[in-house]
Amino acid sequence: MNYTYHMPTKVFSGNHCIIENSHVLKSFGNKAMLVTGRSSAKKNGSQDDVVAALEKQGIEYVVFDQVMANPTVACTYEGAAFAKANQVDFIVAIGGGSPMDAAKAMALLAKQDVAEADLFNGQYSEDVLPVIAVPTTAGTGSEVTQYSILTNDAAETKTSIVSDIIFPKVAFVDARYMLGLPVTTTVNTAVDALSHAIEGMLSIRASLVSDALAKESIRFFVKAAPLMCEAVARNDASVLDERVRNDLMQCAMLAGMVIAQTGTTAVHAMGYSLTYFKDIDHGRANGLLLAEYMAVVQESEPQLITDILSALGMTELGQFKALLNQLLGAAEVLTQAEVLKYTAKAVTVKSIEGNCKVKPSEDEVKSMFMEAFHLS
Amino acid sequence: MNYTYHMPTKVFSGNHCIIENSHVLKSFGNKAMLVTGRSSAKKNGSQDDVVAALEKQGIEYVVFDQVMANPTVACTYEGAAFAKANQVDFIVAIGGGSPMDAAKAMALLAKQDVAEADLFNGQYSEDVLPVIAVPTTAGTGSEVTQYSILTNDAAETKTSIVSDIIFPKVAFVDARYMLGLPVTTTVNTAVDALSHAIEGMLSIRASLVSDALAKESIRFFVKAAPLMCEAVARNDASVLDERVRNDLMQCAMLAGMVIAQTGTTAVHAMGYSLTYFKDIDHGRANGLLLAEYMAVVQESEPQLITDILSALGMTELGQFKALLNQLLGAAEVLTQAEVLKYTAKAVTVKSIEGNCKVKPSEDEVKSMFMEAFHLS
Repeated sequence: MNYTYHMPTKVFSGNHCIIENSHVLKSFGNKAMLVTGRSSAKKNGSQDDVVAALEKQGIEYVVFDQVMANPTVACTYEGAAFAKANQVDFIVAIGGGSPMDAAKAMALLAKQDVAEADLFNGQYSEDVLPVIAVPTTAGTGSEVTQYSILTNDAAETKTSIVSDIIFPKVAFVDARYMLGLPVTTTVNTAVDALSHAIEGMLSIRASLVSDALAKESIRFFVKAAPLMCEAVARNDASVLDERVRNDLMQCAMLAGMVIAQTGTTAVHAMGYSLTYFKDIDHGRANGLLLAEYMAVVQESEPQLITDILSALGMTELGQFKALLNQLLGAAEVLTQAEVLKYTAKAVTVKSIEGNCKVKPSEDEVKSMFMEAFHLS
Repeated sequence: MNYTYHMPTKVFSGNHCIIENSHVLKSFGNKAMLVTGRSSAKKNGSQDDVVAALEKQGIEYVVFDQVMANPTVACTYEGAAFAKANQVDFIVAIGGGSPMDAAKAMALLAKQDVAEADLFNGQYSEDVLPVIAVPTTAGTGSEVTQYSILTNDAAETKTSIVSDIIFPKVAFVDARYMLGLPVTTTVNTAVDALSHAIEGMLSIRASLVSDALAKESIRFFVKAAPLMCEAVARNDASVLDERVRNDLMQCAMLAGMVIAQTGTTAVHAMGYSLTYFKDIDHGRANGLLLAEYMAVVQESEPQLITDILSALGMTELGQFKALLNQLLGAAEVLTQAEVLKYTAKAVTVKSIEGNCKVKPSEDEVKSMFMEAFHLS
């Protein structure tokens, strides 16, 4: 039973947890930089709450609200320069995975001179701005991971900065910020979180600790599933009440704790191409591939899939496929040529070779794409 | 769903994990102090492994091997003076809860001048020597907690230093060090761990994260229980093989992660008197009281007990009592006067008033003692 467990982020969870624990911010300094996207943090109340907490503690702040979806390397250098110019003591990242991941890279680059060519090499000193994470979607779990996933045009895919130094120091998890999130975003991010929990159980780095968290994460997804299906069927986000929002927030956070230990597997490796070349949402891309990979695993390691299905409250992989179909609808159209290109790309991603309990062959990767996109 | 989760210790688990990860030690400095008891760390191989890892990394070390069971405040000041005199950079604590808890206090006192009268007031600066924990019993879970529990003669009980700064930076969990541990020590420490997991679920600070870890901890206890019962029946530790030792090590570590979030409850509050005045082993003391407190909780919150029994794979509290009886044997003899004295003491402990989902009245505390010691 060899494993490593590390998840140093201090999590505060609950309605109004930022303002109720604003004293925590004070320990990180006198000037903050808010890192967020252009608009959602302003609309969902999260930015107002952060500002209120900072003001309550007499902490100055500046705002960098230029983070795009799937943030680029260039954006992180820009944010780091802004942090340096404003001499901030810490960063508060507000939003989905994009602002949180971008903020982690900015925190690193604000304190260390790292050339773009070296950004993903994992060789950093200990110096970093503290990051406080305020998730407003329930998906990436970036609030509790050491990953910063950036769009890397040089490599035509997403690439990760991985370092213990970029674990957020604190995460404030308040599901109220998700109220009003559209149905599609809610489902895609939830499926991303579920994919983290399931892939975590299929990783060679899975341990009893990560599996316990993964199963709990899956149970929260299952609790939220009926109302998500209803929201999809009626295309109406108003059925997604505070209870469901909270279930999804906990699902995503627990799944983040899982991938902080395990990393992801073939599903994410394959999904990155769908996002990069076809602009298919990250969570949706994973969801379209997840059951296909589970079917591959089931052939040689059926117990692994039985354990996952058990946490899902299911007995057959077909039931799980049906649920994903209900949530995600019909897959996009892919050509054979695209499948070949994405297959060649996916098999080069290290999470396939280095991280899967069951490593799919190139043929199997191709078959999974074909199956998922009904080309076989 | 308001809660806080924090457990920053990096855990390495597995056979030979110290030597395989010796590079981790190097990041803490060039001179270490080993803190341990008089003999067990020398016999069970743990001290040799630590020394080998330090030597491999070219790290100097000094040894403080004067920690007694239920360590005193005086001992921690002595160790801190030793650390200062030797100008060590970090501490490696090797042993059961006693050396680990003592080491945490020494780590604090080596860097901060704290008067004995202020030792338990929770007001410390951030300055502390890093502590690396190497557990050699599976009980306290001190390797992953922010607690240092010391014998406080001034208060005639055990008192805790509680501070995030004393979380061990790293824990090396290698079950081989437990091979050869006597049956009684094994059972008492295992029951202590079980008590942590169960009390964690009965704490007002229980959360979905701590409950997931607690249930997993309980499952590991259950896996180990049949061979522990056999070892007790035959009074033969040799039946406790490496698999059982590992199950118990994981049980204890997970339960430590739980109480790092939740603290303990009435069981520990009551047990401290049994240890202080009657010299009943700490884990045994908890075990004698655990089912009695569960019975009290069951009266007003039956679902809490159903959940715990479910993790135990049981349906009736009676089954659990029977298992504890089998493991612990007959209770010690207590007088009515002793019960009254311990009751008066226990109700002053803050974990009763401040931490229990179901707060027992003074009468109920008395009744629990009476029931547990067959005086009613």
